[in-house]
Amino acid sequence: MTRPAPLNKTKNMKKKTYDPEYLRDFITRFFEKLGAPPADAAAVADVFVRAELRNLPSHGMIRLKDHYQLWEAGRLNMRPEIRVVHESPSTAVLDGDNGIGMLVATRAMQTAIEKARTAGSGWVAVRNSNHFGIGSYYTLMAVEAGMIGLAMTNGNPLVAPANSVDRLLGTNPIAVAVPAGKYPPFVGDFSTTPIARGKLAVAAKKGEKVPFGYVIDKEGNPSDDPDILKKGGAMVPLGGDLAHGSHKGYALGAIVDILSGVLSGANFGPFVPPNLAYLPLPDEQVGKGMGHFFGAWRIDAFMPDETFRERMDRWIEIFRNAKPVPGKKVLIPGDIEREAEERISREGITIIPAIQDEVKELAEKLDLDFEVKG
Amino acid sequence: MTRPAPLNKTKNMKKKTYDPEYLRDFITRFFEKLGAPPADAAAVADVFVRAELRNLPSHGMIRLKDHYQLWEAGRLNMRPEIRVVHESPSTAVLDGDNGIGMLVATRAMQTAIEKARTAGSGWVAVRNSNHFGIGSYYTLMAVEAGMIGLAMTNGNPLVAPANSVDRLLGTNPIAVAVPAGKYPPFVGDFSTTPIARGKLAVAAKKGEKVPFGYVIDKEGNPSDDPDILKKGGAMVPLGGDLAHGSHKGYALGAIVDILSGVLSGANFGPFVPPNLAYLPLPDEQVGKGMGHFFGAWRIDAFMPDETFRERMDRWIEIFRNAKPVPGKKVLIPGDIEREAEERISREGITIIPAIQDEVKELAEKLDLDFEVKG
Repeated sequence: MTRPAPLNKTKNMKKKTYDPEYLRDFITRFFEKLGAPPADAAAVADVFVRAELRNLPSHGMIRLKDHYQLWEAGRLNMRPEIRVVHESPSTAVLDGDNGIGMLVATRAMQTAIEKARTAGSGWVAVRNSNHFGIGSYYTLMAVEAGMIGLAMTNGNPLVAPANSVDRLLGTNPIAVAVPAGKYPPFVGDFSTTPIARGKLAVAAKKGEKVPFGYVIDKEGNPSDDPDILKKGGAMVPLGGDLAHGSHKGYALGAIVDILSGVLSGANFGPFVPPNLAYLPLPDEQVGKGMGHFFGAWRIDAFMPDETFRERMDRWIEIFRNAKPVPGKKVLIPGDIEREAEERISREGITIIPAIQDEVKELAEKLDLDFEVKG
Repeated sequence: MTRPAPLNKTKNMKKKTYDPEYLRDFITRFFEKLGAPPADAAAVADVFVRAELRNLPSHGMIRLKDHYQLWEAGRLNMRPEIRVVHESPSTAVLDGDNGIGMLVATRAMQTAIEKARTAGSGWVAVRNSNHFGIGSYYTLMAVEAGMIGLAMTNGNPLVAPANSVDRLLGTNPIAVAVPAGKYPPFVGDFSTTPIARGKLAVAAKKGEKVPFGYVIDKEGNPSDDPDILKKGGAMVPLGGDLAHGSHKGYALGAIVDILSGVLSGANFGPFVPPNLAYLPLPDEQVGKGMGHFFGAWRIDAFMPDETFRERMDRWIEIFRNAKPVPGKKVLIPGDIEREAEERISREGITIIPAIQDEVKELAEKLDLDFEVKG
């Protein structure tokens, strides 16, 4: 005797979310159309999709247009010859040949991991690259190889050093991922500023002010205007103001710039080229393209892998079970993104209608299909 | 014809400052009296004096008493057998055998530098150590060897993770020093909190409040009470509050704890033993002593040394010449301490009378001379 299938209310509704595989396939074909070899296009697509899965849409589909426009302007090399130009047993400098940042960064972390396999640790400074997306992607490659991973990058100058009003540093993020045993890895991934620039754009669109401690005006006064960057203002380093340690955030952002830019042979400070085709390249270049820095430490180069994982599990337990501020929850860095990834992998990826339309438009230019879900 | 010598008003005044060599010699004899071999005592004295020269007196003479009391309580090993217990071509774990932190740290950075000479980079995680003083001392050892140096340490738990009221992290400082060419090195050395704990003590002594954004009370509310640590409160991570990125400061402090404590086999989080004899050791230990982490990258493992130094000079020029906030001066990390070191090396070291008396008292117990300048 067969029973009738249970009524599935959503069955006949048009699904509003995108299947990750659908987007992965689309992005791969998108970059193939721009001239990328299939394997390169697939590598880049994986970073894009991971950003959407981890609920970091500011680094996902919204960036396809930037890449298209850079390609259209002849500012992105779709068939880069990425190569090691200098090396030692535990270090290398990689020239990205102006390729897509996510491709160059993936190769760089692979190189760091290979170095670490033999030398115990691996360090790769990268020049001649472009925006690399989410740093946690590369640090998680190290975790998958049983290592601690580190990734950092410099970026378009938006941030003023402490005591200055000149925009000399990017938001220069640092990502570190650490494997554990029975628990998921620790994944810290943060800009060296109080907020990411995206928060300013969102507030500006809503016509809202932002809290003091994010930006200063062109005279260096604290400001609550999210549009201040267009008026000669600047973002401030982590810490917010001198009394709260913005000189520390400045030092941290500077270290990222020095390792990513100075040590690699890339541009640094105010010379980092913008990854937006409508912004002109700086007149002067002090190196090649944008710079990144990657590292991998092999766990068993310090202690037996199993011992470390047990210790890290203990660390995670202690911090997760810390007494919370009433009504709050103590998190392990990476919790939010991992929980998002689990949920979104199940439920599908939501893309806001404006971005769906934008991608559809790009797809049409390239003679590709892209389903708008509305 | 000879002219009369100009009148030197200070010539016949009793000099109020200490000659660095006098203090170096005194501290060496002090630790010899506690049982340290002469070379070890001299190595420790050098770190103490450098803290005074760099105008960081909170890490100088004031700490002699802490060391004396730890020694008296049998909690400090004056003849440690410091040894590498695990290694790979670019990494090592060093067991400090519960020696003076400054001695252990010096050995650890030497090991990192040696590893970097052959492997391109060197990474040393340290367990079974104690308070290491100023991190910049070790990073400057790397600079003297022509390398980029990194030093970090965990510490007594005072800092609550974001969203928590439990004190689980130390102020966990990070130091990075980078050699340049014609300019002095870049030396960033900062705690991963808005302020060092010393600032709270100073405000408390003066009966002053502190700005909000340094500490929270035991319920997690913002507080301006510099004595709040005695009332169940906690320091907050760099960023100050969630809106200004304290979750980033938390991640940063956590990374320092994981590399220094978890990866080395030292204690981590709330188990880090206090370096004050009047504070009991935690009941439970998850490792040995306090933990540190050191790194050295050889410049020419990335690019020719001269090229890097020219690039770093350019970086320094750009940042030093950034447009300042009116009335302010843009600094390169390390400027303040280096200028202090030049001045104090010339003028001598000032020690506040209360600390002079304290040191005099310790000297008498050990049958040593110590000149009080009043």
